[in-house]
Amino acid sequence: MVAPSSRNWTDLIRQCAAIVGEDGVISSAEERSVYECDGLASYRQMPGLVVLPRTTEQVAALVQLCDRELIPFVARGSGTGLSGGALPTPDCMLIVTARMNQILEVDLENQRVRVQPGVINAWVTQAVADAGYYYAPDPSSQIICSIGGNIAENSGGVHCLKYGVTNNHVLSMTFVLPNGAVMETGRKVPELPGYDLTGLLVGSEGTLGIATEITLRILKAPEAVEVLLADFTTIEAAGQTVADIIQAGIIPAGMEIMDNLSINAVEDVVQTNCYPRDAGAVLIIELDGLQEEVVASRQRVGAICDQNGARQVTVATDLQERLRLWKGRKAAFAAAGKLSPNYFVQDGVIPRTKLATVLGEIEALGQQFGYQIANVFHAGDGNLHPLILYDESVPGSLQAVEALGGEILKLCVRSGGSISGEHGIGSDKKCFMPDMFSALDLESMLWVRQAFDPKTLANPEKVFPTPRTCGEGAHAHLSVEVGDAQLF
Amino acid sequence: MVAPSSRNWTDLIRQCAAIVGEDGVISSAEERSVYECDGLASYRQMPGLVVLPRTTEQVAALVQLCDRELIPFVARGSGTGLSGGALPTPDCMLIVTARMNQILEVDLENQRVRVQPGVINAWVTQAVADAGYYYAPDPSSQIICSIGGNIAENSGGVHCLKYGVTNNHVLSMTFVLPNGAVMETGRKVPELPGYDLTGLLVGSEGTLGIATEITLRILKAPEAVEVLLADFTTIEAAGQTVADIIQAGIIPAGMEIMDNLSINAVEDVVQTNCYPRDAGAVLIIELDGLQEEVVASRQRVGAICDQNGARQVTVATDLQERLRLWKGRKAAFAAAGKLSPNYFVQDGVIPRTKLATVLGEIEALGQQFGYQIANVFHAGDGNLHPLILYDESVPGSLQAVEALGGEILKLCVRSGGSISGEHGIGSDKKCFMPDMFSALDLESMLWVRQAFDPKTLANPEKVFPTPRTCGEGAHAHLSVEVGDAQLF
Repeated sequence: MVAPSSRNWTDLIRQCAAIVGEDGVISSAEERSVYECDGLASYRQMPGLVVLPRTTEQVAALVQLCDRELIPFVARGSGTGLSGGALPTPDCMLIVTARMNQILEVDLENQRVRVQPGVINAWVTQAVADAGYYYAPDPSSQIICSIGGNIAENSGGVHCLKYGVTNNHVLSMTFVLPNGAVMETGRKVPELPGYDLTGLLVGSEGTLGIATEITLRILKAPEAVEVLLADFTTIEAAGQTVADIIQAGIIPAGMEIMDNLSINAVEDVVQTNCYPRDAGAVLIIELDGLQEEVVASRQRVGAICDQNGARQVTVATDLQERLRLWKGRKAAFAAAGKLSPNYFVQDGVIPRTKLATVLGEIEALGQQFGYQIANVFHAGDGNLHPLILYDESVPGSLQAVEALGGEILKLCVRSGGSISGEHGIGSDKKCFMPDMFSALDLESMLWVRQAFDPKTLANPEKVFPTPRTCGEGAHAHLSVEVGDAQLF
Repeated sequence: MVAPSSRNWTDLIRQCAAIVGEDGVISSAEERSVYECDGLASYRQMPGLVVLPRTTEQVAALVQLCDRELIPFVARGSGTGLSGGALPTPDCMLIVTARMNQILEVDLENQRVRVQPGVINAWVTQAVADAGYYYAPDPSSQIICSIGGNIAENSGGVHCLKYGVTNNHVLSMTFVLPNGAVMETGRKVPELPGYDLTGLLVGSEGTLGIATEITLRILKAPEAVEVLLADFTTIEAAGQTVADIIQAGIIPAGMEIMDNLSINAVEDVVQTNCYPRDAGAVLIIELDGLQEEVVASRQRVGAICDQNGARQVTVATDLQERLRLWKGRKAAFAAAGKLSPNYFVQDGVIPRTKLATVLGEIEALGQQFGYQIANVFHAGDGNLHPLILYDESVPGSLQAVEALGGEILKLCVRSGGSISGEHGIGSDKKCFMPDMFSALDLESMLWVRQAFDPKTLANPEKVFPTPRTCGEGAHAHLSVEVGDAQLF
């Protein structure tokens, strides 16, 4: 039991054990080291102490202890986040929600489910699927990421084009504030009067407190689902097709683009045999709704693909065939790992109408820096995920790739877009916040932070740029282990 | 030029005139009296001074002046609000946005329109209709209410069932903070990282500052629209039909219920000849989307109406016929004015599944208090608008009706609902906030308010309960002039 600072850790451990039980406190250096990073493995920091509460009351008692003793605290769900949002700060209390894994209430009649934050995203749909419902936000990590983490990062997913990201699906929360008080935001109906605290807290990346119970909206499963795979000779044609489909008044459940480099990586690895290796890009379109609606939409979407020069449009109606068309997209990040020893994934957003232009500019940036870039992304949302391929054994490559990634983000901002689509700011992108927000924008956010957390104990050193932020990046950045790649 | 306090108004008028020009300052008592109330005419208070800026810079300069001189300021759009949100406070500067009426940019490609806050709601759709677009939030007052007011109150409307209320359609704002600083919230794409300030400011009822430019999302106009009018022998059957339609996975553009009392009032006044006088209730359902989708939905909705015992279902496909079916609903509040000398309209929300039960309880409350209640409401959202009929010439009737209205709101809260669906809290409902929110909920909101407005100058005495709030209600409450009734 090694304690990393002059704080009286023995006494703290005793107090934590009194709250969560002996088996809910992890204090040995060896066991704590498991928690030194999240999905962004290149940032690492040992927490002072790890605690695993089971209830709102236990979280509140822990946070009250932190407030009293001025201990910074960091909440962690499954640790799959990609922006270092759950990175411990030195000597912090890491509050892990893994044992808060109960589905507390399923209320089909009112289409809502109340869960603890450690519940895994996919469990929500599993709990209601037999009754014909589902939970819409579907990050690619959904079989492992937690609802609490989704709340913190306002997570997206393939189906958020039509149904919106996490904040559109949270009706209310029980929320432990940084002083340990327990607040109930929202009621059973949406759109309450007063300030929208639920909306404010979703996406606040743990800097305003910890959600301990969450009421989620579930949707009726669509009657019909079809998937179209269209192949194009150029990525610009695929991008234009996306814009034209939306322009025609059709909102597919999802629209994803993969470029030639990604297609070939995927076919090398998983051999779907449905992604043509000579295509400039493939566009995968999922349509859902009433049977008649889906059939009508499919005909129109097919025509728009044809007008944009699609060489072939494959349609899948039954589940097996749909999964086959999705298979390559789902394997794309893992497959990219075969293209080079390392890759760096960026997450940025541009207005959908600028897809063709900006993709060209990203390619030009890659050539300028001397790196290949693969593109696999949520095209309907304009949410880009450029994958910069590199070899970290080449001296200076990580720094160069980081600089290239930063240029891509700045390009997104110049195009009227955003430095993050769904991964959050966390530890990783805080130095880019001033590229996107004015000093006053950031100051206004800090007013809110200060109002909720005057002692700055809740997930400190995240989201907001600090004077030393922008120097840090060079030595610890976005290189993701290929083993994590299926989680994008 | 009569000044109501010891403040040096002459000097203030001079300073304001230097900012907005002589013709932008209204200081005579006679002219100021025009602005002493909004749509909730029973609360009245003369403003100290009225100013009519034209630009963000002018608003910022006025607010800086208020900040320097500690003058409370109240923003006012068209003054159609029904909760007294634009009620002046004594000696305040009333900042009227009527001259900020420019549509600044129409960007069809990216489906957005940038407007000044004094632009009338309906103008947005008018500006883009020829190109096949529209702005979805449609309060019944849309031909007169302003976008700025819609932002302040997070306004709803008939079509918000499917498309969501105002906060779902605001992409970004230029916002003058209570210290006069000008912030830009949001960018051209939705779902930014950092705290969701746009979401926080929409619906903040002028207590956090003033929106001076607003970028709205516009939608592609649906290809097909149909309206169904179903008549039922009981209101419970109409309510159950609403729940069953949603349960079947169909989200109509709007679903409205009118009860027998409202039907007869409407037929007396506008003779639609399509609302059966012996019906317990009529349900009006608007379907929109692709042609095939609307046809399929209509068949299913029709079948659900039949299963719930609808005596007749009328379908309107062409515009004239659709307007005929809507005519009675649109005239309902005006017609209710014929049922009794006065009426009192309440605005509350309940979970949709509790419609049948709660409507019965409201009727029972009416009987208990000895007043008839007509019901005309956004059934799909569970957004009730009970109209309590009374005669203000009967001593004590207003107080009794207010008490009954309060009981209805408490019933909404007990049912898991809300004390406001779309009219806001304003001056009118602040004493009910503690029925809905805990002390900590309200304190957390006040932290935010304090952070943005430490001097409490922005629309003071609104939204949040004050010790003297709950005594005030008895003498100045919700009696709305019948002439305003078409605005609901």
